[in-house]
Amino acid sequence: MATEIERKFLVANDSWRAAVIRSERMTQGYIARGPTATVRIRLIDGDDAMLTLKGKTVGVSRPEFEYAIPRDEAEDLLVLCGEARLSKTRHFIEHVGHEWTIDVFEDRLSGLIVAEIELGDEAESFATPSWLGEEVSQDKRYANALLVDATAPPIRN
Amino acid sequence: MATEIERKFLVANDSWRAAVIRSERMTQGYIARGPTATVRIRLIDGDDAMLTLKGKTVGVSRPEFEYAIPRDEAEDLLVLCGEARLSKTRHFIEHVGHEWTIDVFEDRLSGLIVAEIELGDEAESFATPSWLGEEVSQDKRYANALLVDATAPPIRN
Repeated sequence: MATEIERKFLVANDSWRAAVIRSERMTQGYIARGPTATVRIRLIDGDDAMLTLKGKTVGVSRPEFEYAIPRDEAEDLLVLCGEARLSKTRHFIEHVGHEWTIDVFEDRLSGLIVAEIELGDEAESFATPSWLGEEVSQDKRYANALLVDATAPPIRN
Repeated sequence: MATEIERKFLVANDSWRAAVIRSERMTQGYIARGPTATVRIRLIDGDDAMLTLKGKTVGVSRPEFEYAIPRDEAEDLLVLCGEARLSKTRHFIEHVGHEWTIDVFEDRLSGLIVAEIELGDEAESFATPSWLGEEVSQDKRYANALLVDATAPPIRN
């Protein structure tokens, strides 16, 4: 079992775009979302398909299990997900020894941009890029498993 | 995607025991059970661990996706399932060209014995063994994903 320790932020401006080193477009769906776990199918354009089980989040940590699956089966599973799907382009940025991902959401979530950093432990410090906005790690509305049900990006007060 | 076409029966007597050709003990749990799919982890004693996604049942058919996963990860996933687990011994029987499985449930489901046959299509005929009891294919209470919540075997009227 891996443990995913992740912090999540909005972006304050567009200056991150100049630092992008690679990008990939992905479509993902949730075939099951229960009180103890979510089960995600992710199709990455021209690349792998992954089946990912994530346990309950405690603080900013959660257990994660990930398996590569055949692409055609992932496509069938995405159909079974029905409306519980979203597409986004993920951009990768290196900043002072850490990798950031910046997800630019599409369709009804257009306008939503979320930056994430994975950490080795919850207390790990990291340099703050100039484009970094408000932290939303604890705002459940930004969980992708809930964003798939949203009709528009969440509004922060 | 495979399609599972399965009919399910109670047993009328114990004469099936003389025909058993092999048996395996399994523990399984459900990490997520949604309206569109169930996600099962199954650990077979001394053998494989499987992650299985099953779609919604229509009649006696349902889409099924199965992946072998590392045994230690399956054990971690079973812990995440909490109480939604059951153990049973599965016995295999050949009868006039078909394979039957007979599940003998344990613990709080002790006394429950269910015979299953997998068919190539919904209309496929099969010889009826002398030990075959009432069909319960349409009785949702016999779905393993629901049996894990039961405190005792279902009672038929």
